[in-house]
Amino acid sequence: MTDLATAPANSPSDTDITDWDRDHNLHPWATTDSWRTDDYMRINTAKGIYVWDSTGKKFIDGPGGMWCVQIGYGRQDMADAIAKQVMEMPYASPWSSTSEPAAILARKIAEMTPGDLDTVFFTTGGSTAVDTALRTVQFYNNRLGRPEKKLIMAREKGYHGSTYLASSVTGKERFNTKYDNASDLVRFLPDVNPYGRPEGTTLDQWCDQKVADMEALIEREGADNIGAFIAEPILCSGGVIVPPPGYHKRTLDLCRKHDILYISDEVVTGFGRLGHWFASEEVFDIVPDMITCAKGLTSGYLPLGACIMSNALMKRMEDPTGEEVFYNGYTYTGHPVSCAAALKNIEIMEDEDILGHVQRVTPHFQDRLKAIGEKFDIVGDVRGMGLLGCIECRPDLPQDTFDAHLKFGAKLDMACEEMGLMLRPFGNMAVFSPPLIISKEEIDDMFDIMEAGLEKLSAEYNG
Amino acid sequence: MTDLATAPANSPSDTDITDWDRDHNLHPWATTDSWRTDDYMRINTAKGIYVWDSTGKKFIDGPGGMWCVQIGYGRQDMADAIAKQVMEMPYASPWSSTSEPAAILARKIAEMTPGDLDTVFFTTGGSTAVDTALRTVQFYNNRLGRPEKKLIMAREKGYHGSTYLASSVTGKERFNTKYDNASDLVRFLPDVNPYGRPEGTTLDQWCDQKVADMEALIEREGADNIGAFIAEPILCSGGVIVPPPGYHKRTLDLCRKHDILYISDEVVTGFGRLGHWFASEEVFDIVPDMITCAKGLTSGYLPLGACIMSNALMKRMEDPTGEEVFYNGYTYTGHPVSCAAALKNIEIMEDEDILGHVQRVTPHFQDRLKAIGEKFDIVGDVRGMGLLGCIECRPDLPQDTFDAHLKFGAKLDMACEEMGLMLRPFGNMAVFSPPLIISKEEIDDMFDIMEAGLEKLSAEYNG
Repeated sequence: MTDLATAPANSPSDTDITDWDRDHNLHPWATTDSWRTDDYMRINTAKGIYVWDSTGKKFIDGPGGMWCVQIGYGRQDMADAIAKQVMEMPYASPWSSTSEPAAILARKIAEMTPGDLDTVFFTTGGSTAVDTALRTVQFYNNRLGRPEKKLIMAREKGYHGSTYLASSVTGKERFNTKYDNASDLVRFLPDVNPYGRPEGTTLDQWCDQKVADMEALIEREGADNIGAFIAEPILCSGGVIVPPPGYHKRTLDLCRKHDILYISDEVVTGFGRLGHWFASEEVFDIVPDMITCAKGLTSGYLPLGACIMSNALMKRMEDPTGEEVFYNGYTYTGHPVSCAAALKNIEIMEDEDILGHVQRVTPHFQDRLKAIGEKFDIVGDVRGMGLLGCIECRPDLPQDTFDAHLKFGAKLDMACEEMGLMLRPFGNMAVFSPPLIISKEEIDDMFDIMEAGLEKLSAEYNG
Repeated sequence: MTDLATAPANSPSDTDITDWDRDHNLHPWATTDSWRTDDYMRINTAKGIYVWDSTGKKFIDGPGGMWCVQIGYGRQDMADAIAKQVMEMPYASPWSSTSEPAAILARKIAEMTPGDLDTVFFTTGGSTAVDTALRTVQFYNNRLGRPEKKLIMAREKGYHGSTYLASSVTGKERFNTKYDNASDLVRFLPDVNPYGRPEGTTLDQWCDQKVADMEALIEREGADNIGAFIAEPILCSGGVIVPPPGYHKRTLDLCRKHDILYISDEVVTGFGRLGHWFASEEVFDIVPDMITCAKGLTSGYLPLGACIMSNALMKRMEDPTGEEVFYNGYTYTGHPVSCAAALKNIEIMEDEDILGHVQRVTPHFQDRLKAIGEKFDIVGDVRGMGLLGCIECRPDLPQDTFDAHLKFGAKLDMACEEMGLMLRPFGNMAVFSPPLIISKEEIDDMFDIMEAGLEKLSAEYNG
């Protein structure tokens, strides 16, 4: 116990809280020179698609929390359902028991998933869902007596989370990192972003190349050494990268041909972001062996994730001797309160037809995004699908310095924040994924501010 | 979407829910022959130290959920605090922002920890806290330019969680597992359980041997190759193993001597189990470099964990160039609702002096445990500390068969469950860690049932 400053914890001032966050709360991806100097914006209240910071300033929440707040903020029905479960039964060990919310939610998810993906293993978020999926690949192939069939194919620019294993299959942000990864377990496929394809290459040709990349990797490593392919349907944290049409189906077929498991990481695309519960089949025409999800499952209101497995996969892991134990699981696997929150979240999405709403407003959202690409010289690419969008700056910006280029996302975010819109900057890009309840008018507010921000940046870059 | 049976999810029958759990909800440590045949007890309601299953049967919750429900069940103040935060602000991205509950809780934890452990990194539970601690060891030694100093010393019978990395430092349940582990990163020290020591060996001699084990390992691998030692103060899941007196201090000194980080895994011992917020210093006289915690932090009401780091460690990771980024973090890092639950949990523990209560009832709890060891022939060892207890059967049980021996825990649990007490069986042991609010009378109820259960088992084993 250090002799800390003396303000009482039960009535801290605004300044106290700022100090305490800076002094004691280590944030993800803090730079190691700034973690005791920088202050983070503090979000105090939130309602609908809006959040307010500790100074009272109001923002449209462009990132939807972190790709997650599907139903918007401030839902009394969520607070009531959560409080009810807390009072009835807030915790039961998943090792020895179960709970109504976990059982009902598992069933509900099985109804939503494609194909025979009927078995749900609950985790505490996306990282642990991916960690579980990858450990299941190991379990499965050891069980089948082929311990060498373990390599995971992943992709450049892919993001799959932050446990050691989930981070190891993440293909972005690998520069300047002092973390280790289990590199011997993973092989990366090159960037699938159509925006990066050579001039003159059609989307079909690009797809051929990307499928050929996978064929070459399988050829090089040997199918007998490859256990799984993990892929987001859209590479969201990598910059909302939509692989070329046909890519998903053809890579799935290739995996099937070589008995390689296909893990579809729907942590972002699941639960309505593209207007469907899951995007794998309904949008991209694939039925994978496993789906990982989190975020939208509870609209971010409480931590929860899941790794969903196919019956075929489960069948192949069965062992009639009873000696094999699925030694994976967390104290908070199937947490009753998190599961109750997910059930209410799904009920709200059903009752308010939020999937239908997303399908109805998507054309307007994507039209306005496309218009930005046409209107601003400094914009190199705009892309998106459903209520996902990304603006990437031109690689040859007029006043281009490496710095100006890399800071485009942050500059655009800053310009928009002044006018009341938060975006999520990623180097030379800014991405956004607002709450799914956003109205057509609110979509216009959002894009109006983005356009004003881009006007400002255009003047700066051209000035 | 599979064609599933047609009962509506909004009004399922009791049988439906049982079916759904069996068909769709995969539990931790399911055996692969039984995961579609066995039904789990379903806990529907809970209050104080009691839970009720779906048939209405009432039990004393011996395991306290899963070593976690410190304040007991059914607390209206918890439901209110959680609902309040849900309405005010249920989610903020920890990458770009912070929240009052996260900042205040980080400060609060820094006040509770020993020494200069003032920096808190929030996770989603114990496994991710350990994963973060171990990744921090890698980051730290890479940062210091000694990438070879990475091996983790862990212990047989230790339990540290279920991500790939947390599982890799777990020294129990390694038989019959089809999971892989990062074995090249870990070295195990032999069992420290005093109960297993050779006849005639004193506790002091045992401690000497255990310290010598670590010295030999450091000698063998080279201190330059060893990054950290991870250790629970009491090896709880391994069977409430209390290392011999002096062991903690001497192993810490050895680590310090060789610049090896000491990670104290207080996921079970933290937040009052031994009558203190943390046990490292107040019970075992050590100030480690990192403490991991979870469980009691929220009394299990919501998922939350933390990896707490010392200022000295943070200082050595600083990089004035600003190029090193702490690329670790979860969407649900510092979740505002989970943090609000933790703050209320701590407030309740303070207001009701639950630490003082634990200190007051511990002697009675441990006396009754000790009496069991003296009273029953079939019991080989009883051990515990604070409100932690373990009963281990005699290795040479009269009717000893391998099966009878290994099933002792399950048999004792079953006998007690009939009389209204749940225990947690581990092979030849049963452990218990009731809610910390348990009264002296309730402790008597608990041990009375355990004694009756042991009478029954004694008859069976001797019959």
